[in-house]
Amino acid sequence: MSTATPALENTARIRVRYAETDQMGVAYYGNYFTWFEVARVEWCKAAGFNYRDMEREDGALLVVAEATCRYRAPARFDDELAVRTFVTKARSRMVAFGYEVRKVETDELLATGETSHLICGPDMKPRTLPEKYRVRFGL
Amino acid sequence: MSTATPALENTARIRVRYAETDQMGVAYYGNYFTWFEVARVEWCKAAGFNYRDMEREDGALLVVAEATCRYRAPARFDDELAVRTFVTKARSRMVAFGYEVRKVETDELLATGETSHLICGPDMKPRTLPEKYRVRFGL
Amino acid sequence: MSTATPALENTARIRVRYAETDQMGVAYYGNYFTWFEVARVEWCKAAGFNYRDMEREDGALLVVAEATCRYRAPARFDDELAVRTFVTKARSRMVAFGYEVRKVETDELLATGETSHLICGPDMKPRTLPEKYRVRFGL
Amino acid sequence: MSTATPALENTARIRVRYAETDQMGVAYYGNYFTWFEVARVEWCKAAGFNYRDMEREDGALLVVAEATCRYRAPARFDDELAVRTFVTKARSRMVAFGYEVRKVETDELLATGETSHLICGPDMKPRTLPEKYRVRFGL
Repeated sequence: MSTATPALENTARIRVRYAETDQMGVAYYGNYFTWFEVARVEWCKAAGFNYRDMEREDGALLVVAEATCRYRAPARFDDELAVRTFVTKARSRMVAFGYEVRKVETDELLATGETSHLICGPDMKPRTLPEKYRVRFGL
Repeated sequence: MSTATPALENTARIRVRYAETDQMGVAYYGNYFTWFEVARVEWCKAAGFNYRDMEREDGALLVVAEATCRYRAPARFDDELAVRTFVTKARSRMVAFGYEVRKVETDELLATGETSHLICGPDMKPRTLPEKYRVRFGL
Repeated sequence: MSTATPALENTARIRVRYAETDQMGVAYYGNYFTWFEVARVEWCKAAGFNYRDMEREDGALLVVAEATCRYRAPARFDDELAVRTFVTKARSRMVAFGYEVRKVETDELLATGETSHLICGPDMKPRTLPEKYRVRFGL
Repeated sequence: MSTATPALENTARIRVRYAETDQMGVAYYGNYFTWFEVARVEWCKAAGFNYRDMEREDGALLVVAEATCRYRAPARFDDELAVRTFVTKARSRMVAFGYEVRKVETDELLATGETSHLICGPDMKPRTLPEKYRVRFGL
Protein backbone atom coordinates (compact mmCIF):
# COMPACT_ATOMS: atom_id res chain seq x y z
CA MET A 1 0.00 0.00 0.00
CA SER A 2 1.45 3.37 -0.96
CA THR A 3 1.96 6.05 1.66
CA ALA A 4 -0.45 8.31 -0.17
CA THR A 5 -3.46 6.00 0.08
CA PRO A 6 -3.60 4.22 3.44
CA ALA A 7 -6.19 1.52 3.99
CA LEU A 8 -8.52 2.32 1.10
CA GLU A 9 -10.17 -1.06 1.54
CA ASN A 10 -11.40 -2.96 4.56
CA THR A 11 -13.65 -5.95 5.20
CA ALA A 12 -16.05 -6.00 8.14
CA ARG A 13 -17.55 -9.16 9.59
CA ILE A 14 -21.24 -9.05 10.54
CA ARG A 15 -23.47 -11.80 11.92
CA VAL A 16 -27.15 -11.60 10.82
CA ARG A 17 -29.36 -11.01 13.84
CA TYR A 18 -32.77 -12.58 14.41
CA ALA A 19 -34.16 -9.05 14.67
CA GLU A 20 -32.93 -8.41 11.14
CA THR A 21 -34.95 -11.20 9.55
CA ASP A 22 -38.52 -10.77 8.33
CA GLN A 23 -41.38 -13.15 7.69
CA MET A 24 -39.89 -14.15 4.32
CA GLY A 25 -37.25 -15.90 6.43
CA VAL A 26 -34.45 -13.67 5.12
CA ALA A 27 -32.78 -10.44 6.19
CA TYR A 28 -35.00 -7.40 5.59
CA TYR A 29 -33.72 -5.22 2.75
CA GLY A 30 -33.38 -2.06 4.82
CA ASN A 31 -30.85 -3.67 7.16
CA TYR A 32 -28.17 -3.79 4.48
CA PHE A 33 -27.85 -0.02 4.88
CA THR A 34 -27.16 -0.47 8.59
CA TRP A 35 -24.52 -3.05 7.70
CA PHE A 36 -22.99 -0.56 5.24
CA GLU A 37 -22.80 1.92 8.15
CA VAL A 38 -21.09 -0.62 10.41
CA ALA A 39 -18.64 -1.43 7.61
CA ARG A 40 -18.00 2.27 6.98
CA VAL A 41 -17.20 2.89 10.64
CA GLU A 42 -14.77 -0.04 10.57
CA TRP A 43 -13.26 1.28 7.36
CA CYS A 44 -12.51 4.53 9.18
CA LYS A 45 -10.69 2.61 11.92
CA ALA A 46 -8.68 0.70 9.33
CA ALA A 47 -7.87 4.05 7.71
CA GLY A 48 -6.47 5.31 10.99
CA PHE A 49 -9.23 7.33 12.66
CA ASN A 50 -12.48 6.96 14.56
CA TYR A 51 -15.60 8.27 12.87
CA ARG A 52 -16.86 9.08 16.38
CA ASP A 53 -13.97 11.47 16.93
CA MET A 54 -14.34 12.98 13.47
CA GLU A 55 -17.91 13.95 14.44
CA ARG A 56 -17.30 14.85 18.05
CA GLU A 57 -13.90 16.50 18.02
CA ASP A 58 -13.65 17.86 14.51
CA GLY A 59 -17.29 18.61 13.78
CA ALA A 60 -17.28 16.81 10.45
CA LEU A 61 -20.30 14.57 9.72
CA LEU A 62 -20.69 12.25 6.75
CA VAL A 63 -24.32 13.00 5.85
CA VAL A 64 -25.76 10.48 3.41
CA ALA A 65 -26.79 12.04 0.10
CA GLU A 66 -27.60 8.85 -1.81
CA ALA A 67 -27.67 5.14 -1.04
CA THR A 68 -28.21 2.13 -3.29
CA CYS A 69 -28.23 -1.61 -2.75
CA ARG A 70 -28.58 -4.41 -5.31
CA TYR A 71 -29.70 -7.71 -3.83
CA ARG A 72 -28.49 -10.91 -5.52
CA ALA A 73 -29.19 -13.62 -2.97
CA PRO A 74 -30.74 -13.50 0.49
CA ALA A 75 -28.82 -13.32 3.74
CA ARG A 76 -30.29 -15.49 6.49
CA PHE A 77 -30.30 -15.56 10.29
CA ASP A 78 -26.90 -16.36 11.82
CA ASP A 79 -25.09 -16.11 8.46
CA GLU A 80 -21.69 -14.53 8.84
CA LEU A 81 -21.22 -11.80 6.28
CA ALA A 82 -18.06 -10.15 4.97
CA VAL A 83 -18.68 -6.58 3.85
CA ARG A 84 -15.82 -5.36 1.68
CA THR A 85 -15.73 -1.55 1.81
CA PHE A 86 -13.79 0.86 -0.33
CA VAL A 87 -13.74 4.55 -1.22
CA THR A 88 -15.01 5.16 -4.75
CA LYS A 89 -14.78 8.92 -4.75
CA ALA A 90 -13.24 11.55 -2.50
CA ARG A 91 -13.50 15.29 -2.91
CA SER A 92 -13.02 18.09 -0.40
CA ARG A 93 -16.79 18.28 0.10
CA MET A 94 -18.01 14.71 -0.53
CA VAL A 95 -16.92 11.11 -0.31
CA ALA A 96 -18.46 7.90 -1.65
CA PHE A 97 -18.11 4.29 -0.62
CA GLY A 98 -18.73 1.01 -2.40
CA TYR A 99 -19.66 -2.26 -0.69
CA GLU A 100 -19.71 -5.96 -1.51
CA VAL A 101 -21.55 -8.28 0.84
CA ARG A 102 -20.51 -11.93 0.76
CA LYS A 103 -21.59 -14.94 2.78
CA VAL A 104 -18.40 -16.07 4.50
CA GLU A 105 -19.23 -19.78 4.48
CA THR A 106 -19.60 -20.00 0.71
CA ASP A 107 -18.02 -16.72 -0.51
CA GLU A 108 -21.27 -16.16 -2.42
CA LEU A 109 -21.88 -12.53 -3.39
CA LEU A 110 -25.17 -11.51 -1.77
CA ALA A 111 -25.32 -7.80 -2.49
CA THR A 112 -23.45 -4.76 -3.72
CA GLY A 113 -24.06 -1.14 -2.85
CA GLU A 114 -22.90 2.45 -2.74
CA THR A 115 -23.39 5.41 -0.47
CA SER A 116 -22.34 8.99 -1.14
CA HIS A 117 -21.92 11.54 1.60
CA LEU A 118 -21.68 15.27 1.96
CA ILE A 119 -19.26 16.59 4.55
CA CYS A 120 -21.37 18.69 6.94
CA GLY A 121 -20.94 20.50 10.22
CA PRO A 122 -23.02 19.72 13.33
CA ASP A 123 -25.52 22.25 11.92
CA MET A 124 -25.98 19.93 8.89
CA LYS A 125 -24.51 22.59 6.57
CA PRO A 126 -21.88 21.60 3.98
CA ARG A 127 -18.26 22.20 4.87
CA THR A 128 -14.92 20.89 3.67
CA LEU A 129 -13.24 17.79 5.03
CA PRO A 130 -10.78 18.80 7.78
CA GLU A 131 -7.19 18.76 6.60
CA LYS A 132 -6.12 15.84 8.80
CA TYR A 133 -8.67 13.47 7.26
CA ARG A 134 -7.82 14.22 3.61
CA VAL A 135 -4.93 11.84 3.37
CA ARG A 136 -7.09 9.16 5.00
CA PHE A 137 -9.45 9.36 2.05
CA GLY A 138 -6.59 9.44 -0.45
CA LEU A 139 -6.98 13.16 -1.16
CA MET B 1 -62.41 15.36 31.62
CA SER B 2 -61.71 16.94 34.99
CA THR B 3 -59.48 19.99 35.21
CA ALA B 4 -57.14 18.20 37.59
CA THR B 5 -56.32 15.22 35.43
CA PRO B 6 -56.45 16.01 31.72
CA ALA B 7 -56.19 13.15 29.25
CA LEU B 8 -54.63 10.56 31.52
CA GLU B 9 -55.43 7.87 28.99
CA ASN B 10 -55.07 7.68 25.24
CA THR B 11 -55.16 4.93 22.62
CA ALA B 12 -52.77 4.98 19.67
CA ARG B 13 -53.33 3.03 16.46
CA ILE B 14 -50.33 1.29 14.94
CA ARG B 15 -50.10 -0.91 11.85
CA VAL B 16 -47.51 -3.73 12.04
CA ARG B 17 -44.82 -3.17 9.41
CA TYR B 18 -43.18 -5.90 7.36
CA ALA B 19 -39.84 -4.68 8.74
CA GLU B 20 -41.12 -5.44 12.22
CA THR B 21 -41.74 -9.12 11.57
CA ASP B 22 -39.10 -11.81 12.01
CA GLN B 23 -38.63 -15.29 10.61
CA MET B 24 -41.11 -16.72 13.15
CA GLY B 25 -43.71 -14.88 11.07
CA VAL B 26 -44.66 -12.58 13.95
CA ALA B 27 -43.61 -9.15 15.19
CA TYR B 28 -40.16 -9.18 16.82
CA TYR B 29 -40.35 -8.69 20.58
CA GLY B 30 -38.15 -5.61 20.69
CA ASN B 31 -40.54 -3.65 18.48
CA TYR B 32 -43.18 -3.44 21.19
CA PHE B 33 -40.94 -0.95 22.97
CA THR B 34 -40.92 1.24 19.86
CA TRP B 35 -44.71 1.00 19.77
CA PHE B 36 -44.80 2.04 23.42
CA GLU B 37 -42.76 5.10 22.45
CA VAL B 38 -45.13 5.98 19.61
CA ALA B 39 -48.07 5.58 21.99
CA ARG B 40 -46.33 7.72 24.64
CA VAL B 41 -45.73 10.54 22.16
CA GLU B 42 -49.40 10.41 21.17
CA TRP B 43 -50.40 10.37 24.84
CA CYS B 44 -48.49 13.65 25.26
CA LYS B 45 -50.45 15.19 22.39
CA ALA B 46 -53.72 14.02 23.92
CA ALA B 47 -52.55 15.52 27.21
CA GLY B 48 -52.06 18.86 25.51
CA PHE B 49 -48.38 19.14 24.65
CA ASN B 50 -45.78 17.88 22.19
CA TYR B 51 -43.01 15.73 23.58
CA ARG B 52 -40.78 17.27 20.89
CA ASP B 53 -41.30 20.73 22.38
CA MET B 54 -40.82 19.46 25.91
CA GLU B 55 -37.35 18.26 24.87
CA ARG B 56 -36.44 21.10 22.55
CA GLU B 57 -37.91 24.14 24.21
CA ASP B 58 -38.02 23.16 27.84
CA GLY B 59 -34.99 20.88 28.05
CA ALA B 60 -36.88 18.10 29.80
CA LEU B 61 -36.22 14.57 28.53
CA LEU B 62 -38.06 11.42 29.60
CA VAL B 63 -35.09 9.06 29.94
CA VAL B 64 -36.15 5.42 30.26
CA ALA B 65 -35.13 3.84 33.57
CA GLU B 66 -36.97 0.54 33.22
CA ALA B 67 -39.10 -1.15 30.59
CA THR B 68 -41.10 -4.37 30.67
CA CYS B 69 -43.34 -6.17 28.22
CA ARG B 70 -45.41 -9.32 28.73
CA TYR B 71 -46.37 -11.07 25.50
CA ARG B 72 -49.65 -13.00 25.41
CA ALA B 73 -50.30 -13.57 21.72
CA PRO B 74 -48.31 -12.62 18.64
CA ALA B 75 -48.90 -9.55 16.50
CA ARG B 76 -48.58 -10.20 12.79
CA PHE B 77 -47.79 -8.20 9.66
CA ASP B 78 -50.49 -5.69 8.73
CA ASP B 79 -52.40 -6.19 11.99
CA GLU B 80 -53.86 -2.96 13.27
CA LEU B 81 -53.02 -2.52 16.94
CA ALA B 82 -54.62 -0.32 19.58
CA VAL B 83 -52.12 0.68 22.27
CA ARG B 84 -53.94 2.01 25.34
CA THR B 85 -51.57 4.25 27.28
CA PHE B 86 -51.95 5.67 30.77
CA VAL B 87 -49.84 7.26 33.47
CA THR B 88 -49.30 4.90 36.38
CA LYS B 89 -47.08 7.13 38.48
CA ALA B 90 -46.06 10.79 38.38
CA ARG B 91 -43.58 12.48 40.68
CA SER B 92 -41.61 15.67 40.26
CA ARG B 93 -38.57 13.66 39.11
CA MET B 94 -40.06 10.57 37.43
CA VAL B 95 -43.12 9.38 35.56
CA ALA B 96 -44.30 5.92 34.59
CA PHE B 97 -46.64 4.67 31.87
CA GLY B 98 -48.66 1.51 31.43
CA TYR B 99 -49.66 0.01 28.07
CA GLU B 100 -52.14 -2.51 26.74
CA VAL B 101 -51.74 -3.70 23.17
CA ARG B 102 -54.84 -5.14 21.51
CA LYS B 103 -55.50 -6.39 18.00
CA VAL B 104 -58.21 -4.07 16.70
CA GLU B 105 -59.95 -6.66 14.53
CA THR B 106 -60.65 -9.05 17.42
CA ASP B 107 -60.01 -6.89 20.51
CA GLU B 108 -57.66 -9.66 21.66
CA LEU B 109 -55.11 -8.56 24.27
CA LEU B 110 -51.66 -9.21 22.77
CA ALA B 111 -49.37 -7.63 25.32
CA THR B 112 -49.10 -5.40 28.37
CA GLY B 113 -46.16 -3.32 29.47
CA GLU B 114 -44.72 -0.53 31.57
CA THR B 115 -41.99 2.04 31.20
CA SER B 116 -40.64 4.31 33.90
CA HIS B 117 -38.72 7.47 33.14
CA LEU B 118 -36.45 9.90 34.91
CA ILE B 119 -36.85 13.56 34.04
CA CYS B 120 -33.43 14.67 32.78
CA GLY B 121 -31.88 17.72 31.18
CA PRO B 122 -30.15 17.63 27.78
CA ASP B 123 -27.00 16.70 29.74
CA MET B 124 -28.80 13.50 30.84
CA LYS B 125 -28.69 14.63 34.48
CA PRO B 126 -31.84 14.37 36.62
CA ARG B 127 -33.96 17.47 37.02
CA THR B 128 -37.55 18.22 38.02
CA LEU B 129 -40.45 18.28 35.61
CA PRO B 130 -41.01 21.87 34.46
CA GLU B 131 -43.98 23.51 36.17
CA LYS B 132 -46.13 23.75 33.06
CA TYR B 133 -46.08 19.99 32.48
CA ARG B 134 -47.03 18.98 36.02
CA VAL B 135 -50.75 19.35 35.57
CA ARG B 136 -50.49 17.38 32.33
CA PHE B 137 -49.25 14.43 34.32
CA GLY B 138 -51.88 14.92 37.01
CA LEU B 139 -49.38 16.37 39.50
CA MET C 1 -54.89 7.41 -16.23
CA SER C 2 -56.73 4.80 -18.29
CA THR C 3 -59.69 2.91 -16.87
CA ALA C 4 -57.60 -0.25 -17.02
CA THR C 5 -55.10 1.02 -14.47
CA PRO C 6 -56.75 1.75 -11.13
CA ALA C 7 -54.92 3.58 -8.37
CA LEU C 8 -51.44 3.73 -9.87
CA GLU C 9 -50.56 6.39 -7.32
CA ASN C 10 -51.12 6.68 -3.60
CA THR C 11 -49.77 8.84 -0.79
CA ALA C 12 -49.06 7.36 2.63
CA ARG C 13 -48.77 9.43 5.79
CA ILE C 14 -45.97 8.51 8.20
CA ARG C 15 -44.96 10.14 11.48
CA VAL C 16 -41.21 10.02 12.26
CA ARG C 17 -40.62 7.97 15.40
CA TYR C 18 -38.07 8.76 18.10
CA ALA C 19 -36.57 5.31 17.45
CA GLU C 20 -35.94 6.36 13.87
CA THR C 21 -33.73 9.33 14.76
CA ASP C 22 -29.99 9.07 15.32
CA GLN C 23 -27.46 11.16 17.16
CA MET C 24 -27.29 13.65 14.27
CA GLY C 25 -30.79 14.61 15.43
CA VAL C 26 -32.37 13.49 12.15
CA ALA C 27 -33.98 10.31 10.82
CA TYR C 28 -31.41 7.58 10.11
CA TYR C 29 -30.95 6.97 6.38
CA GLY C 30 -31.88 3.29 6.49
CA ASN C 31 -35.37 4.05 7.80
CA TYR C 32 -36.47 5.57 4.52
CA PHE C 33 -36.51 2.05 3.09
CA THR C 34 -38.90 0.96 5.83
CA TRP C 35 -41.10 3.94 4.99
CA PHE C 36 -41.01 2.92 1.33
CA GLU C 37 -42.27 -0.51 2.43
CA VAL C 38 -45.10 1.01 4.47
CA ALA C 39 -46.03 3.19 1.50
CA ARG C 40 -45.89 0.19 -0.87
CA VAL C 41 -48.23 -1.82 1.34
CA GLU C 42 -50.65 1.11 1.39
CA TRP C 43 -50.32 1.46 -2.37
CA CYS C 44 -51.48 -2.15 -2.69
CA LYS C 45 -54.56 -1.37 -0.60
CA ALA C 46 -55.33 1.66 -2.74
CA ALA C 47 -54.91 -0.57 -5.79
CA GLY C 48 -57.53 -2.93 -4.44
CA PHE C 49 -55.66 -5.76 -2.70
CA ASN C 50 -53.75 -6.60 0.44
CA TYR C 51 -50.07 -7.42 0.04
CA ARG C 52 -50.51 -9.78 3.00
CA ASP C 53 -53.05 -11.83 1.07
CA MET C 54 -50.93 -11.77 -2.08
CA GLU C 55 -48.15 -13.44 -0.07
CA ARG C 56 -50.26 -15.72 2.06
CA GLU C 57 -53.05 -16.81 -0.24
CA ASP C 58 -51.47 -16.51 -3.66
CA GLY C 59 -47.85 -17.30 -2.84
CA ALA C 60 -46.51 -14.26 -4.66
CA LEU C 61 -43.78 -12.28 -2.88
CA LEU C 62 -42.30 -8.97 -4.01
CA VAL C 63 -38.63 -9.67 -3.33
CA VAL C 64 -36.49 -6.53 -3.48
CA ALA C 65 -33.85 -6.64 -6.23
CA GLU C 66 -32.63 -3.07 -5.96
CA ALA C 67 -33.32 -0.06 -3.78
CA THR C 68 -32.13 3.54 -3.99
CA CYS C 69 -32.79 6.67 -1.99
CA ARG C 70 -31.60 10.23 -2.61
CA TYR C 71 -31.68 12.46 0.45
CA ARG C 72 -32.30 16.18 -0.07
CA ALA C 73 -33.20 17.46 3.38
CA PRO C 74 -33.43 15.71 6.74
CA ALA C 75 -36.63 14.39 8.30
CA ARG C 76 -36.86 15.00 12.03
CA PHE C 77 -38.63 13.45 15.01
CA ASP C 78 -42.41 13.92 14.93
CA ASP C 79 -42.41 15.30 11.39
CA GLU C 80 -45.41 14.11 9.41
CA LEU C 81 -44.30 12.78 6.04
CA ALA C 82 -46.27 12.22 2.86
CA VAL C 83 -44.80 9.40 0.77
CA ARG C 84 -46.15 9.55 -2.78
CA THR C 85 -45.88 6.09 -4.32
CA PHE C 86 -46.31 5.04 -7.92
CA VAL C 87 -45.53 2.11 -10.19
CA THR C 88 -42.70 2.91 -12.57
CA LYS C 89 -42.48 -0.46 -14.30
CA ALA C 90 -44.59 -3.59 -14.37
CA ARG C 91 -43.75 -6.82 -16.16
CA SER C 92 -45.02 -10.35 -15.61
CA ARG C 93 -41.93 -11.15 -13.53
CA MET C 94 -40.97 -7.82 -11.94
CA VAL C 95 -42.43 -4.54 -10.77
CA ALA C 96 -40.81 -1.26 -9.73
CA PHE C 97 -42.01 1.59 -7.56
CA GLY C 98 -41.00 5.24 -7.27
CA TYR C 99 -41.34 7.34 -4.12
CA GLU C 100 -41.33 11.00 -3.17
CA VAL C 101 -41.08 11.89 0.50
CA ARG C 102 -42.35 15.34 1.50
CA LYS C 103 -42.69 17.05 4.85
CA VAL C 104 -46.41 17.70 5.16
CA GLU C 105 -46.11 20.94 7.11
CA THR C 106 -44.04 22.70 4.44
CA ASP C 107 -44.47 20.46 1.37
CA GLU C 108 -40.67 20.38 1.18
CA LEU C 109 -39.27 17.46 -0.82
CA LEU C 110 -37.03 15.50 1.54
CA ALA C 111 -36.16 12.44 -0.52
CA THR C 112 -36.88 10.44 -3.64
CA GLY C 113 -36.35 6.76 -4.21
CA GLU C 114 -37.02 3.62 -6.20
CA THR C 115 -37.33 -0.06 -5.44
CA SER C 116 -37.52 -2.87 -7.96
CA HIS C 117 -38.90 -6.29 -7.12
CA LEU C 118 -38.85 -9.78 -8.54
CA ILE C 119 -42.05 -11.78 -8.22
CA CYS C 120 -41.08 -14.92 -6.27
CA GLY C 121 -42.79 -17.89 -4.69
CA PRO C 122 -42.51 -18.75 -0.99
CA ASP C 123 -39.36 -20.70 -1.97
CA MET C 124 -37.82 -17.37 -3.13
CA LYS C 125 -37.70 -18.63 -6.73
CA PRO C 126 -38.92 -16.34 -9.54
CA ARG C 127 -42.45 -16.87 -10.81
CA THR C 128 -44.96 -14.79 -12.75
CA LEU C 129 -47.41 -12.39 -11.17
CA PRO C 130 -50.74 -14.19 -10.61
CA GLU C 131 -53.35 -13.25 -13.18
CA LYS C 132 -55.64 -11.46 -10.77
CA TYR C 133 -52.94 -8.95 -9.76
CA ARG C 134 -51.90 -7.99 -13.27
CA VAL C 135 -54.58 -5.41 -13.83
CA ARG C 136 -53.74 -3.94 -10.42
CA PHE C 137 -50.28 -3.15 -11.68
CA GLY C 138 -51.58 -1.84 -15.01
CA LEU C 139 -50.51 -4.94 -16.94
CA MET D 1 -20.53 -25.36 38.10
CA SER D 2 -21.31 -29.09 37.98
CA THR D 3 -20.19 -31.25 35.08
CA ALA D 4 -23.83 -31.72 34.14
CA THR D 5 -24.30 -28.04 33.31
CA PRO D 6 -21.91 -26.90 30.56
CA ALA D 7 -21.48 -23.22 29.74
CA LEU D 8 -24.28 -21.75 31.83
CA GLU D 9 -22.71 -18.35 31.36
CA ASN D 10 -21.31 -16.52 28.36
CA THR D 11 -20.32 -12.97 27.53
CA ALA D 12 -21.03 -11.49 24.11
CA ARG D 13 -19.26 -8.45 22.70
CA ILE D 14 -21.37 -5.90 20.86
CA ARG D 15 -20.37 -2.59 19.31
CA VAL D 16 -23.06 0.14 19.42
CA ARG D 17 -24.11 1.07 15.89
CA TYR D 18 -24.91 4.58 14.69
CA ALA D 19 -28.35 3.26 13.67
CA GLU D 20 -28.93 2.33 17.29
CA THR D 21 -28.49 5.86 18.63
CA ASP D 22 -31.31 8.37 18.87
CA GLN D 23 -31.45 12.14 19.06
CA MET D 24 -30.64 12.07 22.79
CA GLY D 25 -27.18 11.01 21.60
CA VAL D 26 -27.43 7.61 23.31
CA ALA D 27 -28.55 4.12 22.32
CA TYR D 28 -32.34 3.85 22.00
CA TYR D 29 -33.87 1.79 24.79
CA GLY D 30 -35.50 -0.78 22.53
CA ASN D 31 -32.16 -1.88 21.10
CA TYR D 32 -31.09 -3.50 24.37
CA PHE D 33 -33.60 -6.24 23.64
CA THR D 34 -31.93 -6.89 20.29
CA TRP D 35 -28.59 -7.07 22.09
CA PHE D 36 -30.10 -9.56 24.54
CA GLU D 37 -31.10 -11.67 21.53
CA VAL D 38 -27.60 -11.52 20.06
CA ALA D 39 -26.17 -12.49 23.46
CA ARG D 40 -28.70 -15.36 23.79
CA VAL D 41 -27.75 -16.76 20.40
CA GLU D 42 -24.09 -16.65 21.41
CA TRP D 43 -24.93 -18.27 24.74
CA CYS D 44 -26.44 -21.18 22.79
CA LYS D 45 -23.21 -21.57 20.82
CA ALA D 46 -21.18 -21.53 24.04
CA ALA D 47 -23.58 -24.14 25.41
CA GLY D 48 -22.85 -26.39 22.45
CA PHE D 49 -25.64 -25.86 19.94
CA ASN D 50 -26.90 -23.40 17.34
CA TYR D 51 -30.23 -21.73 18.03
CA ARG D 52 -30.73 -21.72 14.25
CA ASP D 53 -30.59 -25.52 14.19
CA MET D 54 -32.82 -25.83 17.24
CA GLU D 55 -35.51 -23.94 15.31
CA ARG D 56 -34.89 -25.38 11.88
CA GLU D 57 -34.03 -28.99 12.58
CA ASP D 58 -35.76 -29.66 15.86
CA GLY D 59 -38.76 -27.36 15.56
CA ALA D 60 -38.24 -25.80 18.98
CA LEU D 61 -38.62 -22.03 19.18
CA LEU D 62 -37.86 -19.85 22.20
CA VAL D 63 -40.89 -17.55 22.08
CA VAL D 64 -40.51 -14.53 24.36
CA ALA D 65 -43.12 -14.39 27.12
CA GLU D 66 -41.71 -11.49 29.09
CA ALA D 67 -38.81 -9.08 28.78
CA THR D 68 -37.46 -6.45 31.14
CA CYS D 69 -34.55 -4.05 31.06
CA ARG D 70 -33.31 -1.66 33.74
CA TYR D 71 -31.15 1.17 32.43
CA ARG D 72 -28.45 2.58 34.72
CA ALA D 73 -26.23 4.58 32.41
CA PRO D 74 -26.43 5.26 28.69
CA ALA D 75 -24.57 3.35 25.99
CA ARG D 76 -23.19 5.54 23.24
CA PHE D 77 -22.19 5.16 19.60
CA ASP D 78 -19.11 2.99 19.07
CA ASP D 79 -19.01 1.85 22.71
CA GLU D 80 -17.98 -1.77 23.02
CA LEU D 81 -20.38 -3.62 25.28
CA ALA D 82 -19.97 -6.91 27.14
CA VAL D 83 -23.30 -8.66 27.65
CA ARG D 84 -22.99 -11.36 30.31
CA THR D 85 -25.73 -13.93 29.77
CA PHE D 86 -26.88 -16.73 32.04
CA VAL D 87 -29.80 -19.07 32.48
CA THR D 88 -31.91 -18.12 35.50
CA LYS D 89 -34.58 -20.77 35.13
CA ALA D 90 -35.02 -23.89 33.03
CA ARG D 91 -38.09 -26.10 32.93
CA SER D 92 -39.27 -28.59 30.33
CA ARG D 93 -41.61 -25.95 28.87
CA MET D 94 -39.86 -22.64 29.57
CA VAL D 95 -36.44 -21.10 30.06
CA ALA D 96 -35.33 -17.71 31.33
CA PHE D 97 -32.15 -15.70 30.84
CA GLY D 98 -30.53 -12.89 32.78
CA TYR D 99 -28.25 -10.25 31.28
CA GLU D 100 -25.73 -7.68 32.47
CA VAL D 101 -24.55 -5.06 30.03
CA ARG D 102 -21.20 -3.42 30.78
CA LYS D 103 -19.12 -0.88 28.91
CA VAL D 104 -15.89 -2.71 28.18
CA GLU D 105 -13.64 0.34 28.40
CA THR D 106 -14.64 1.18 31.98
CA ASP D 107 -16.41 -1.98 33.18
CA GLU D 108 -19.32 0.28 34.14
CA LEU D 109 -22.64 -1.54 34.50
CA LEU D 110 -25.03 0.06 32.01
CA ALA D 111 -28.07 -2.19 32.23
CA THR D 112 -29.48 -5.43 33.53
CA GLY D 113 -32.34 -7.45 32.13
CA GLU D 114 -34.28 -10.69 31.90
CA THR D 115 -36.21 -12.53 29.25
CA SER D 116 -38.41 -15.57 29.76
CA HIS D 117 -39.36 -17.87 26.93
CA LEU D 118 -41.93 -20.55 26.21
CA ILE D 119 -40.75 -23.51 24.18
CA CYS D 120 -43.04 -23.60 21.12
CA GLY D 121 -43.31 -25.49 17.87
CA PRO D 122 -43.23 -23.77 14.46
CA ASP D 123 -47.02 -23.42 14.88
CA MET D 124 -46.33 -21.21 17.95
CA LYS D 125 -48.01 -23.77 20.24
CA PRO D 126 -46.26 -24.77 23.50
CA ARG D 127 -44.25 -27.98 23.47
CA THR D 128 -41.50 -29.47 25.61
CA LEU D 129 -37.82 -28.84 25.08
CA PRO D 130 -36.37 -31.65 22.92
CA GLU D 131 -34.39 -34.17 24.96
CA LYS D 132 -31.03 -33.32 23.44
CA TYR D 133 -31.22 -29.67 24.57
CA ARG D 134 -32.15 -30.38 28.20
CA VAL D 135 -28.63 -30.94 29.43
CA ARG D 136 -27.57 -27.77 27.62
CA PHE D 137 -29.93 -25.81 29.84
CA GLY D 138 -28.84 -27.69 32.94
CA LEU D 139 -32.04 -29.78 33.09
